[in-house]
Amino acid sequence: MIVRPQQHWLRLIFVWHGSVLPKIYTRLFLNFLLSIAVILMLPWYSSLGIKFTVAPFSILGVAIAIFLGFKNNACYSRYVEARLLWGQLMIAARSLFREVKNTLPDDPHLGEFVRLQIAFAHCLRMTLRRQPQAEQLAGYMSADNLRRVMDSSSPANRILLLMGEWLAVRRREGQLSDILFHSLNNRLNDMSVVLSGCERIATTPVPFAYTLILHRTVYLFCIMLPFALVVDLHYMTPFVSALISYTFISLDTLAEELEDPFGTEDNDLPLDAICNAMERDLLQMNDEEAIPERLLPDKHYQLT
Amino acid sequence: MIVRPQQHWLRLIFVWHGSVLPKIYTRLFLNFLLSIAVILMLPWYSSLGIKFTVAPFSILGVAIAIFLGFKNNACYSRYVEARLLWGQLMIAARSLFREVKNTLPDDPHLGEFVRLQIAFAHCLRMTLRRQPQAEQLAGYMSADNLRRVMDSSSPANRILLLMGEWLAVRRREGQLSDILFHSLNNRLNDMSVVLSGCERIATTPVPFAYTLILHRTVYLFCIMLPFALVVDLHYMTPFVSALISYTFISLDTLAEELEDPFGTEDNDLPLDAICNAMERDLLQMNDEEAIPERLLPDKHYQLT
Amino acid sequence: MIVRPQQHWLRLIFVWHGSVLPKIYTRLFLNFLLSIAVILMLPWYSSLGIKFTVAPFSILGVAIAIFLGFKNNACYSRYVEARLLWGQLMIAARSLFREVKNTLPDDPHLGEFVRLQIAFAHCLRMTLRRQPQAEQLAGYMSADNLRRVMDSSSPANRILLLMGEWLAVRRREGQLSDILFHSLNNRLNDMSVVLSGCERIATTPVPFAYTLILHRTVYLFCIMLPFALVVDLHYMTPFVSALISYTFISLDTLAEELEDPFGTEDNDLPLDAICNAMERDLLQMNDEEAIPERLLPDKHYQLT
Amino acid sequence: MIVRPQQHWLRLIFVWHGSVLPKIYTRLFLNFLLSIAVILMLPWYSSLGIKFTVAPFSILGVAIAIFLGFKNNACYSRYVEARLLWGQLMIAARSLFREVKNTLPDDPHLGEFVRLQIAFAHCLRMTLRRQPQAEQLAGYMSADNLRRVMDSSSPANRILLLMGEWLAVRRREGQLSDILFHSLNNRLNDMSVVLSGCERIATTPVPFAYTLILHRTVYLFCIMLPFALVVDLHYMTPFVSALISYTFISLDTLAEELEDPFGTEDNDLPLDAICNAMERDLLQMNDEEAIPERLLPDKHYQLT
Amino acid sequence: MIVRPQQHWLRLIFVWHGSVLPKIYTRLFLNFLLSIAVILMLPWYSSLGIKFTVAPFSILGVAIAIFLGFKNNACYSRYVEARLLWGQLMIAARSLFREVKNTLPDDPHLGEFVRLQIAFAHCLRMTLRRQPQAEQLAGYMSADNLRRVMDSSSPANRILLLMGEWLAVRRREGQLSDILFHSLNNRLNDMSVVLSGCERIATTPVPFAYTLILHRTVYLFCIMLPFALVVDLHYMTPFVSALISYTFISLDTLAEELEDPFGTEDNDLPLDAICNAMERDLLQMNDEEAIPERLLPDKHYQLT
Repeated sequence: MIVRPQQHWLRLIFVWHGSVLPKIYTRLFLNFLLSIAVILMLPWYSSLGIKFTVAPFSILGVAIAIFLGFKNNACYSRYVEARLLWGQLMIAARSLFREVKNTLPDDPHLGEFVRLQIAFAHCLRMTLRRQPQAEQLAGYMSADNLRRVMDSSSPANRILLLMGEWLAVRRREGQLSDILFHSLNNRLNDMSVVLSGCERIATTPVPFAYTLILHRTVYLFCIMLPFALVVDLHYMTPFVSALISYTFISLDTLAEELEDPFGTEDNDLPLDAICNAMERDLLQMNDEEAIPERLLPDKHYQLT
Repeated sequence: MIVRPQQHWLRLIFVWHGSVLPKIYTRLFLNFLLSIAVILMLPWYSSLGIKFTVAPFSILGVAIAIFLGFKNNACYSRYVEARLLWGQLMIAARSLFREVKNTLPDDPHLGEFVRLQIAFAHCLRMTLRRQPQAEQLAGYMSADNLRRVMDSSSPANRILLLMGEWLAVRRREGQLSDILFHSLNNRLNDMSVVLSGCERIATTPVPFAYTLILHRTVYLFCIMLPFALVVDLHYMTPFVSALISYTFISLDTLAEELEDPFGTEDNDLPLDAICNAMERDLLQMNDEEAIPERLLPDKHYQLT
Repeated sequence: MIVRPQQHWLRLIFVWHGSVLPKIYTRLFLNFLLSIAVILMLPWYSSLGIKFTVAPFSILGVAIAIFLGFKNNACYSRYVEARLLWGQLMIAARSLFREVKNTLPDDPHLGEFVRLQIAFAHCLRMTLRRQPQAEQLAGYMSADNLRRVMDSSSPANRILLLMGEWLAVRRREGQLSDILFHSLNNRLNDMSVVLSGCERIATTPVPFAYTLILHRTVYLFCIMLPFALVVDLHYMTPFVSALISYTFISLDTLAEELEDPFGTEDNDLPLDAICNAMERDLLQMNDEEAIPERLLPDKHYQLT
Repeated sequence: MIVRPQQHWLRLIFVWHGSVLPKIYTRLFLNFLLSIAVILMLPWYSSLGIKFTVAPFSILGVAIAIFLGFKNNACYSRYVEARLLWGQLMIAARSLFREVKNTLPDDPHLGEFVRLQIAFAHCLRMTLRRQPQAEQLAGYMSADNLRRVMDSSSPANRILLLMGEWLAVRRREGQLSDILFHSLNNRLNDMSVVLSGCERIATTPVPFAYTLILHRTVYLFCIMLPFALVVDLHYMTPFVSALISYTFISLDTLAEELEDPFGTEDNDLPLDAICNAMERDLLQMNDEEAIPERLLPDKHYQLT
Repeated sequence: MIVRPQQHWLRLIFVWHGSVLPKIYTRLFLNFLLSIAVILMLPWYSSLGIKFTVAPFSILGVAIAIFLGFKNNACYSRYVEARLLWGQLMIAARSLFREVKNTLPDDPHLGEFVRLQIAFAHCLRMTLRRQPQAEQLAGYMSADNLRRVMDSSSPANRILLLMGEWLAVRRREGQLSDILFHSLNNRLNDMSVVLSGCERIATTPVPFAYTLILHRTVYLFCIMLPFALVVDLHYMTPFVSALISYTFISLDTLAEELEDPFGTEDNDLPLDAICNAMERDLLQMNDEEAIPERLLPDKHYQLT
């Protein structure tokens, strides 16, 4: 995610990094070249009786804009929901540990429990980004537990089971009444909601046909556009055509980028930073000494 | 559902399978032929004083685009809600079994309970897709239970009742306190929410008049379009007309496909894969050996 | 509600029953006649210096389309919410009875309780549709209870009170612990949510001014439309004008129909069928013999 | 709120009361006069080289329509949410009293409690409408309690505190177990949700700049409109200009009316009627004799 | 936040303070100057064969309006959600203290607890606005607690932990049963939801690329606009161009202002006033004497 300080409106127009321009400038350039070719070929193909006007493209342009608006809405909702789920994880983690600490203030294994919570966040992040997990998780749990987690088809879910066992042991030993056990279990269920929610977003894209239909109509529209504009604008065609193409193609591309919010592209969620914040918070709540450093954006304002 | 790896923008324009093109190409071809006929007949019918311009179709085109946007929104919401409900089933199933296992770790009948949960998912899936159920469900429950389930007008609801009985027996035997019984019952209620939610989506379509009004205006619009375009575009009419028709007809068709998300068309939900994932997860949580294989997309990237 | 099997796109264009056409065809026909009159009068009124062009109507048409989209959204949301509430009633009813049956499996008065639940659904349905209730409700409760219900200003709410009493008696007799009584009471609260939600939708329409403003602008727009179109389209005016009018008037009319989803028009909710399904389900859960027949759509695919 | 029986579409066009026309007819009349002036001045100012065309106003008109649609959405959401909150109050009040009555059926002070509930609704209503409260509230509570309520900066919140005390006394006396006290307290929390929700809507308007920007652009647009239309429409300018202005100004004005849904304008919520219904319901649930009459709309279909 | 009394529509057109005009008038003025330059240069650059028409800008204008509508929606949702979260804080704070006071009416340390609640609100406000906190918080807690709070990376979360400890002490001393402790803990969890929600909004902006794409297209559109308008409007170009630019630029700027609703700009949330109201309410609920004055808007109707 790009976290940019607020800037003067004039400078924003010239920003390169963080817009989707790096991804689409070749396409815009091709459109620009096509426009020039169209200007040059205009006398030739008009002599063949081939002509275009802007009016039909106006209908098409408005229709595509409406459908692009719909698709951006759908993809942005996924991004917002994904962020919401990670926010709920933060809520559940803090509430769970606060309740555990206030209920069992003298338990010698609180550090073990807090590390399981942190491991859950890292495990979920690495699962969503399809990264190898064993090495990092080893720092947060016993070798025996690690083996059980890595053997599972859903490691994060297995960590939840381990946390439940930790609590169940205390219930059987009489340290937790059924009511408090029930209450703490509900926090685990909240974490389960986050887990399944993230899996849902990651495995169920926006119906592929939307992507396809919009893609196709946007590009065919941008290809035909210079032919329609050239009669009205002549030498100005390449500039106006590139501007209109930029508006449509960039929003189409951005929607696609937001569709999978767990990636590591410019506009994806900073899961590393969220996990880092959670780890710092939970360790501090347990009054530990060794707290990891806070993650900060790099020089391109990029936070992973 | 089509699960396609990300691809170059240029290749996407030529994808056939997974777009709605296979469903609508005859209609587009008819539109193309009509446009050619219109070009040929233009001199004749203009001589009769019949003329068309693009302007009135511009009003109509924008209006239809706005209403199509509304309908796509409504249908896509149904798709999203259906997926959400199956995600909640995953959450409820995992949470329920985690609580049961942590509370009754030594119960010899855990396998029976976990199979009832799996049976619920399969039963719901097969009910929604109107498939015969008895054979598959036989693998997950006793013959006596199976008979009670198949005799019911709502088999999935009967399975919930069986799960509730399983828990109620343990409560009466004193293994579950009222609080924990209440907590586990809430998970069953969560599953009941999913069941009724899916039934609601399956039995209550978007009001039929929306489908009808849009269908009719989209097709009449596409039929009249070549007459309006031919004056401005002449030889180019078939191409532009087919492109505009593709935009409108494909979105109308896709909305209809998403309206019933439980089907087995290209853009429907992969219920088989979701049930398979749930089955794998629950069996692993019970530390069983025989876990079914993971379902993968076929060569057309289709996941059922 | 119309429950139509999926049909070929070509046949859908000619469907009469279930579209809003039966309601609006006189208005469209008037519009058609007006267009013919406009064609005939054109020479006369242009000679008076009165002229129209399409451009101003383009602004107005797009604006009205946007506002119609907004209103359809608002009315369709009411329809969806109403359906959701009845779905929640299904959920609450099943969960409540499942919990009651699992907790008090040997209670001899379960049949009495399940009939109160069914009576609640029928009572709510008949209240919303302003139908007489005493006769039907008599089949589900004692004469004494029926008198108390019919004397109340909110009969459905009184039935909830009776269900609460049924449970409270068992609590006082020691058959239900406070926790389970609390849990079952929450299900009654869920039913109270449905009751008040339906009352809210039925008594609070979309602000009347929206209906009025859109009605007025849609009709004035459709009346002026032929004057604007005739210059461009001449003989084709009646057809294009009727098509545009159909798009706008039908969506305005449909929005109004959906605004009160509890009626018995073509696109209203099938409350009879929902109550029937609930009754069948609950009686089967109580393992009763005499189950009413399932309600099916009539030959016009109409389900009440 | 206007509660109008359904009427013939033709009659609706001529309704005066309940539309926003009474508020804006002077503005429309000014617009009409301006249009006539523009027709008269046209030869003069065209001779100065000042000219207008419709095309630029088309861009502006569509943009304003889109933003007006957005603002109507935002304001209507506030209206819907406000109604929802009062519906939740109804739900909480009924559920609370049902639980209290079923749990403490023989308590001699039930009448006192039910009157506190009714007082809460009236107090909230009068707070939102900034009406004096002491007199009306005096009928529902002891003089001592009334003094404490009126001394508070948030009287409705103080009534909640009194209800909580009523319950807490019974808990300390052993009539309510902790579980049932907890359950009843949750209903009070539901009422607290309604209270704070209504305060939020009443104190936080839609950002003022939206109101301002739309107001300004709508009026400047309507002022410039006749200049643009006159070239195309000449004598018809006043009628078309007034129709377009009506569409834009009425929706802008209505949005503003809905922004504060607790007022007493035509399209505001009927809080008097809602409180009346709640009072009748609760008193009947307590089987009291003296029930106030039901509030009905006046002859202009207006319900306050 | 601007809290302006309702005013005559005519006066609203001339309001300066509170609109976004103070921020953007230089840009509008530059646009105005550019338009004049374009009028003067028109003969020169048309002679070079450079020409513009409005039609292509119509496509672009509508597309930008649609995307601006989308962005305003997204940013306004953040504003609404932020206000909702602070409303939930009010609800949780009142409910929590009501429950505490009704359950432990004679506890001598209620004042300590209520001050922790107030401190939480102030701490959250100052964290979101990045203001120094130690001085103000010192008034609400002991020096020892203050040190623990200020040492934490998330001070507000630490205050929640302190409140949990306050309750846990009473539970261990037997004054609170597990059920009531669980109930009060849920109120703390509600406050945790608010905390994490506000952090989420503050740290996760709308994807930067949206801001960038819209910014860029809006400004390039406004720069090219005079060239397109001048052919049709000539001398009127500066006025119409400035009006269209005002519509687009002001909504773009306002969206950006609402994106971070916790700031202190004209249209941001009045966190000072909300905290003040909460402090007054809670102290009055504890029947204290010294209640701070109510915060009122300044002479520009500005409430911070």
